[in-house]
Amino acid sequence: MKAIKHVNVEKGMKINDLIKEFSNSNVMQAGKLAKAVDILEKMIKDKDCKVFFGQAGALVPGGMKNLILDLIRNKWVDIFVTTGATLTHDLIEALGYEHYQGDENADDEELNKKGLYRMYNSYMDNRAYQKIEDFIKENFDELSKAKKINDFLKILGSKVKHKDSILRACYENNIPIFCPALSDSGLGLMVWGQLTQGKEVSVGAFDDLKDILDIAWTSKKSGVFYLGGGVPKNYIQQAMQFSKEAAYGVQVTMDKAEFGGSSGASLKEGISWGKMQSHADFVDVKVDSTIALPLIIASLKERLL
Amino acid sequence: MKAIKHVNVEKGMKINDLIKEFSNSNVMQAGKLAKAVDILEKMIKDKDCKVFFGQAGALVPGGMKNLILDLIRNKWVDIFVTTGATLTHDLIEALGYEHYQGDENADDEELNKKGLYRMYNSYMDNRAYQKIEDFIKENFDELSKAKKINDFLKILGSKVKHKDSILRACYENNIPIFCPALSDSGLGLMVWGQLTQGKEVSVGAFDDLKDILDIAWTSKKSGVFYLGGGVPKNYIQQAMQFSKEAAYGVQVTMDKAEFGGSSGASLKEGISWGKMQSHADFVDVKVDSTIALPLIIASLKERLL
Amino acid sequence: MKAIKHVNVEKGMKINDLIKEFSNSNVMQAGKLAKAVDILEKMIKDKDCKVFFGQAGALVPGGMKNLILDLIRNKWVDIFVTTGATLTHDLIEALGYEHYQGDENADDEELNKKGLYRMYNSYMDNRAYQKIEDFIKENFDELSKAKKINDFLKILGSKVKHKDSILRACYENNIPIFCPALSDSGLGLMVWGQLTQGKEVSVGAFDDLKDILDIAWTSKKSGVFYLGGGVPKNYIQQAMQFSKEAAYGVQVTMDKAEFGGSSGASLKEGISWGKMQSHADFVDVKVDSTIALPLIIASLKERLL
Amino acid sequence: MKAIKHVNVEKGMKINDLIKEFSNSNVMQAGKLAKAVDILEKMIKDKDCKVFFGQAGALVPGGMKNLILDLIRNKWVDIFVTTGATLTHDLIEALGYEHYQGDENADDEELNKKGLYRMYNSYMDNRAYQKIEDFIKENFDELSKAKKINDFLKILGSKVKHKDSILRACYENNIPIFCPALSDSGLGLMVWGQLTQGKEVSVGAFDDLKDILDIAWTSKKSGVFYLGGGVPKNYIQQAMQFSKEAAYGVQVTMDKAEFGGSSGASLKEGISWGKMQSHADFVDVKVDSTIALPLIIASLKERLL
Repeated sequence: MKAIKHVNVEKGMKINDLIKEFSNSNVMQAGKLAKAVDILEKMIKDKDCKVFFGQAGALVPGGMKNLILDLIRNKWVDIFVTTGATLTHDLIEALGYEHYQGDENADDEELNKKGLYRMYNSYMDNRAYQKIEDFIKENFDELSKAKKINDFLKILGSKVKHKDSILRACYENNIPIFCPALSDSGLGLMVWGQLTQGKEVSVGAFDDLKDILDIAWTSKKSGVFYLGGGVPKNYIQQAMQFSKEAAYGVQVTMDKAEFGGSSGASLKEGISWGKMQSHADFVDVKVDSTIALPLIIASLKERLL
Repeated sequence: MKAIKHVNVEKGMKINDLIKEFSNSNVMQAGKLAKAVDILEKMIKDKDCKVFFGQAGALVPGGMKNLILDLIRNKWVDIFVTTGATLTHDLIEALGYEHYQGDENADDEELNKKGLYRMYNSYMDNRAYQKIEDFIKENFDELSKAKKINDFLKILGSKVKHKDSILRACYENNIPIFCPALSDSGLGLMVWGQLTQGKEVSVGAFDDLKDILDIAWTSKKSGVFYLGGGVPKNYIQQAMQFSKEAAYGVQVTMDKAEFGGSSGASLKEGISWGKMQSHADFVDVKVDSTIALPLIIASLKERLL
Repeated sequence: MKAIKHVNVEKGMKINDLIKEFSNSNVMQAGKLAKAVDILEKMIKDKDCKVFFGQAGALVPGGMKNLILDLIRNKWVDIFVTTGATLTHDLIEALGYEHYQGDENADDEELNKKGLYRMYNSYMDNRAYQKIEDFIKENFDELSKAKKINDFLKILGSKVKHKDSILRACYENNIPIFCPALSDSGLGLMVWGQLTQGKEVSVGAFDDLKDILDIAWTSKKSGVFYLGGGVPKNYIQQAMQFSKEAAYGVQVTMDKAEFGGSSGASLKEGISWGKMQSHADFVDVKVDSTIALPLIIASLKERLL
Repeated sequence: MKAIKHVNVEKGMKINDLIKEFSNSNVMQAGKLAKAVDILEKMIKDKDCKVFFGQAGALVPGGMKNLILDLIRNKWVDIFVTTGATLTHDLIEALGYEHYQGDENADDEELNKKGLYRMYNSYMDNRAYQKIEDFIKENFDELSKAKKINDFLKILGSKVKHKDSILRACYENNIPIFCPALSDSGLGLMVWGQLTQGKEVSVGAFDDLKDILDIAWTSKKSGVFYLGGGVPKNYIQQAMQFSKEAAYGVQVTMDKAEFGGSSGASLKEGISWGKMQSHADFVDVKVDSTIALPLIIASLKERLL
């Protein structure tokens, strides 16, 4: 049995040194977070391991875009599974709009009159949607060559000029983006808008499964990293189930197991499904992603760069 | 200002009478639940209103299937948006398998050896997946005629023989099922399995948007009813945004606004987006769906049948 | 392995019949709630068992007073441990004031100007505090004879005239009220107010421990029933630890184990402490008390009256 | 309207620099945490302001003891309100015992046999209680001179030899410790143990109120800092209500407003009560204390030392 070593902090302390303190205390959610960094370090360093990164939640309006870019540009993740919302938010910024600091207690009727959409305490200018529509229209001939969602997103990424874009970074770094529910987003709606104007697209609803399963099958080992739950987590989990169990796992979420849904399910539960190896290195961390992710990335930079 | 009337309960009390007591106290989550019943009653009775029902979470393994069937068979909902998981669970039962009472503290390695998949404190027999595969294979010629996910699910529903099936009930009652992330499920994987065997399907990833938006555009009024968040909620919310704002709204979820994601977002936030009328009748209820839904349905039966 | 039986509800259904449906499904939080009712029924029927009831949270402003009275008047609980806030709220109503239906999004500055205190979506008239002060003053000679908090509260209860008062009902039914943090409440402050005016009281801070431990020691068996956590839960838990382990346990709380505090700790954790028998009948239910308690009491009335 | 500046992290980054990044993004819980640091910096620097620190939850077994010591030794807080549990855990370590790294999924029956008490994923050796009893016995003559809980704790602190003790540090730095529910703890039980052996103590249950209210009345301004809710938060809140409203407020808690209790109540709600100035600088942060506190203290050291 190991004693808990109390966490010490100092003036000028580096983030990674704090995470090491958390590792020494090894208790409560701070201990879990330190374990998450250790496991991510291992899975990234493991040459045989493909890292499947699933992300849900408003991380771009949440100021976390550059940290997702860090994961991509450092090739710390091999596959990116996300929501249509994240890609829409990314594209909005890539096309010159920004997200704004807001107030969760604001008068939503007032915001509506001002043309501002609220996401908790961040705002988006509703004119951004017009910009996406124009961009999709402009590039539709090429986009419509895609037969799969991940191809569609690769083409889309190739068209983005803004250097700090997730879509573009994935394209440049050959990281496939899976987004099973792309139609469930502003971006999806703008594609549909083209269809209403007589354009055609034949992206299949099931075809991406082949690609993610091929990657999962052919990797020697798999690791999973989830920020939030939803479709991205589940889509990776089922790829593990139908290929081989993950050897590493990190889940950061505020969703809870007690209400039975997939988003809050513990990684441990995945063992019953054959999604997670029974002796895998894994951890669930119950802390908001906007705090956990920066601490994780700063520590990984210290350890891996 | 109205005084809180303390809730009284009696021996032999009927559920709807308890909900009326909650309505009189009109406070805390009990008051919110009573308000949810009142708003649902109104939106269902309102002849001009189409009810969009979005559902996420393991409600079939959670013992709630018959209550979803009640919503469908009584035509209290007009459009059903759900997850691939719910449809998979429904199909599993329709094909003769059951879900089992389990233990959330079970040894997941043991369960895996026994072929049991765990969802919190419920289990599924993993042989059920084979049955789905066979069923899909058998009916693939017809299924592959579908060009849209909701058509695919309508055909699927027409093939189900089990009388207590959500898929079948929606088919019989002409309620379209939208499932944008169908590929993110066991059912989706079994469709893909057919593709690997040389079969073809050309269900498009974006084409369902036309159908849900057409319904939203052509209805005089819209009401939304969410059990859980995820894609189903967001898919309806964006349909409201791109047609007309909802006039009624009920959201039952344990997800929280503070972490910024769409699942936990308050209905009030939707006003800023033009998803919800600024003077709509709406309420957020923070209680597990497996407790809220039975109370709601029992009260609606008392009031509407 | 038992199959999950889907919950059925009917027009005119009685609450206890719904709880039995939950018992048959035996899954998710609905199943936990049914188990809670079963365990409470058992511990109340068990003649050898003393029931220790711990309650925290704003249940009087939450419209639940009559249900707490049901527990007391039916002698379904033998010991009541609560917060100063609950007793203050009870006394406020006993002295003729009411709690009001409010709005959690209200302008708190406006409320302050109007003399209204907000507790989530309930309000209290701040003039009620003056009434408590007068009442304490009036009865101070007798109150000051108390040497222990539970004696103080017994005298207080004897002075209350309002028939629907928790303080009075406990007095009439010989149920001791423990309130270790009585000074942490409006009621406590009003006692202190008397001290500032030269009055004296010699209620000891530690003396109640003898009484609760004596009850715990001399009972053949103990059962614990917690609504919320805080001091009331912990005070009972430590009485179990220093006497004999509880044989039955029901905990209804929205607090979570993951953050390490006593309020969210699972009852199972109590086994390590010797607070709960390792083979006790116990359950944790994650649902708001204002919904759980009425369902529980209505079912108990059906079963026990 | 200010744009959200995306958070950047670098190799070797200092904690305070990350908090500044959070301040620039100013969104989601990361933004709230940065605001908490800014407000704490202000309230500590404000010479006219007394800082009331309320703490609940297992922070000593959570590895956070040294950070609480930092707050005390730097005199960043003027009044400490806590639970009996925290003081018990502190005394256990002061008397030579340690807390241990554990597993929240451990077999509690096994732990019980080994004499280990579990608090989520930390353990305590049950022999520590004997040590506390001996220590109390040894010092009882002096302890029994106390008439108030804060005096009792001051004497207790003066007897502690271990240099890294909260009790001792408060004694040495003249910071009063309020613990209204001291009897609700292992420490309280050991005091009671002396009473059963014929010893006497006359610590009053209400007398500490005078002291905390005197401090609140005589300070020019007040600031409140809460880690967790429970009695410590409420006891400070009522001191604000009965003196003057707080000018600054920081609350770090995972408890939720929706369930109506005092622990989860927003600081904003305090405005209605006259506990918080309507234009006070305040923020609620929804993150586990074991992650928030180290980030806060490290940043404060950078800014204030």
